[in-house]
Amino acid sequence: MSLLLIAPNRDMNVWKESILEVDPNIDIEIWPKVKHKERVNFAVSWRHPKNVLNGYSNLKAVTSLGAGVNHLLEDEAIPEHVKLARVVTSSLKEQLAEYVLTAVLNYRNHTSRYVDQKREGYWSPHDAISKKDCVIGIMGLGEMGIEAARMLSNNGYSVTGWSKTEKQIDGIETFIYNQLNEFLDETNILVCMLPLTSETQGILNLDVFKKLKKPAYLINVGRGAHLIEEDLIYGIDTGALAGACLDVFEEEPLPSHHLFWNRPKIMITPHIGAVTDPKEAVAQIVENYKRTLSGMDLINQVDKKKGY
Amino acid sequence: MSLLLIAPNRDMNVWKESILEVDPNIDIEIWPKVKHKERVNFAVSWRHPKNVLNGYSNLKAVTSLGAGVNHLLEDEAIPEHVKLARVVTSSLKEQLAEYVLTAVLNYRNHTSRYVDQKREGYWSPHDAISKKDCVIGIMGLGEMGIEAARMLSNNGYSVTGWSKTEKQIDGIETFIYNQLNEFLDETNILVCMLPLTSETQGILNLDVFKKLKKPAYLINVGRGAHLIEEDLIYGIDTGALAGACLDVFEEEPLPSHHLFWNRPKIMITPHIGAVTDPKEAVAQIVENYKRTLSGMDLINQVDKKKGY
Repeated sequence: MSLLLIAPNRDMNVWKESILEVDPNIDIEIWPKVKHKERVNFAVSWRHPKNVLNGYSNLKAVTSLGAGVNHLLEDEAIPEHVKLARVVTSSLKEQLAEYVLTAVLNYRNHTSRYVDQKREGYWSPHDAISKKDCVIGIMGLGEMGIEAARMLSNNGYSVTGWSKTEKQIDGIETFIYNQLNEFLDETNILVCMLPLTSETQGILNLDVFKKLKKPAYLINVGRGAHLIEEDLIYGIDTGALAGACLDVFEEEPLPSHHLFWNRPKIMITPHIGAVTDPKEAVAQIVENYKRTLSGMDLINQVDKKKGY
Repeated sequence: MSLLLIAPNRDMNVWKESILEVDPNIDIEIWPKVKHKERVNFAVSWRHPKNVLNGYSNLKAVTSLGAGVNHLLEDEAIPEHVKLARVVTSSLKEQLAEYVLTAVLNYRNHTSRYVDQKREGYWSPHDAISKKDCVIGIMGLGEMGIEAARMLSNNGYSVTGWSKTEKQIDGIETFIYNQLNEFLDETNILVCMLPLTSETQGILNLDVFKKLKKPAYLINVGRGAHLIEEDLIYGIDTGALAGACLDVFEEEPLPSHHLFWNRPKIMITPHIGAVTDPKEAVAQIVENYKRTLSGMDLINQVDKKKGY
């Protein structure tokens, strides 16, 4: 019985040490130098290359190191019977909610313009965007979306939410799947916190941008593939959107020739919205490892049909 | 009986119209084209030139258009018996508190670095500064300071406060005048929200910066003269401070040759922290005008001895 850590270009020894602090008896292997593939029951992965999990005949479960699980769902080398899970810690939820709050405050208060003006030694005040023109619509009311909705609402913002199934959240107007148009009609600032599935891929497109209330703004902290990138550029250049703040991209790192870099109205951060803290995530990983050995279901287990 | 509006380089007709909406019978003059100086009982001023109020023999009171009143206190042409007031609206308090929250979030999350990286087409994530290294110490617990303390505390930050007289605020540790060292010793992020007086002028100096807990950061939304500007540059260059966010300056607009422009660790905004909304301020101005005619004390009257 062993646990495999697999994440290209990351030093996984930090994770190994944190796991051993919780339980020094766990046998841990770090990819790619794996001695006994057949002993691995449980894998902890962040963006592993496809097909490298071939040949792990006793693999029972794989957990993502973060909230995203597309790298697991899309890998056909992971057999159907292998359970999948994701890590959602309270600090991950808080970080992502704070990212969204920061993006909203910076949009309202022209922060990136002031940074640019500072670089140019140029003093010019701009009127802040009124709070009433900042109704925030959150797409995706999972744990992450709910936390962001609460934080924004606590800071005095009007917040609405849109989700596949009906959700009830205090002080927040919610819409379900077939009410997308009504939801967009009330929303100035569209925040994508959806899981990436065949239904949500490309959901951030020109048709959606045009339906938003003006002034409209986009914040994407979901996945890069939620956004039709050329539609965003068209939307900004034609005035459907006042701007956007993006933390995730179709290709990461964002290629150096990408059109986004040269659009002053697009704020870009290098996928830093929520970074899993090893110390906090390890408790959940160790518990899921032991649940796997016992044949139990996992904490934050992924429903493979739903895709999240 | 008339009311004088005086603010160089601002269109005061907006204010005139707003006042007339509240009371169409008020006789309003706009500086510099004043027909009957002797009829002016009440002046509404933002940064009027010194001595232009000479010859207004029946002037009884002057209100600042904002929270700052130094332009009134420093003008010797305003006789001792003339009452002074300032405008503090709830949106002014909320704006300034949000400015401070935004500055804290941007410091923690390296926003200005990401804006600079974007301009350079450069992708590089940086670890956020941990919340536990962001104890916020607010200097000045007037209405503005208390609102900021509450907002930061509601967002999960540890907040302490320092003020001349003892204040009790739920969930916030407070220090008084002679406990400055104890206050600084606990503070990472120092926020200046003090009034400008002979006691507070130059209070943001190297000695104070050195006493802060590391990593230390400065946010100044008080007045430019609270800060010894060369001490800030020395403090940042020598590592006493990790950086600063400034909205107010000794000279505004900040001169084009100023050293601040070239310091990447200094965030500069052009005095936009709190902008008085005419519609909201006018009710208070009209009431103070009528109080003046009745010989009453004013709302938000300034204590000339204290200087605020």
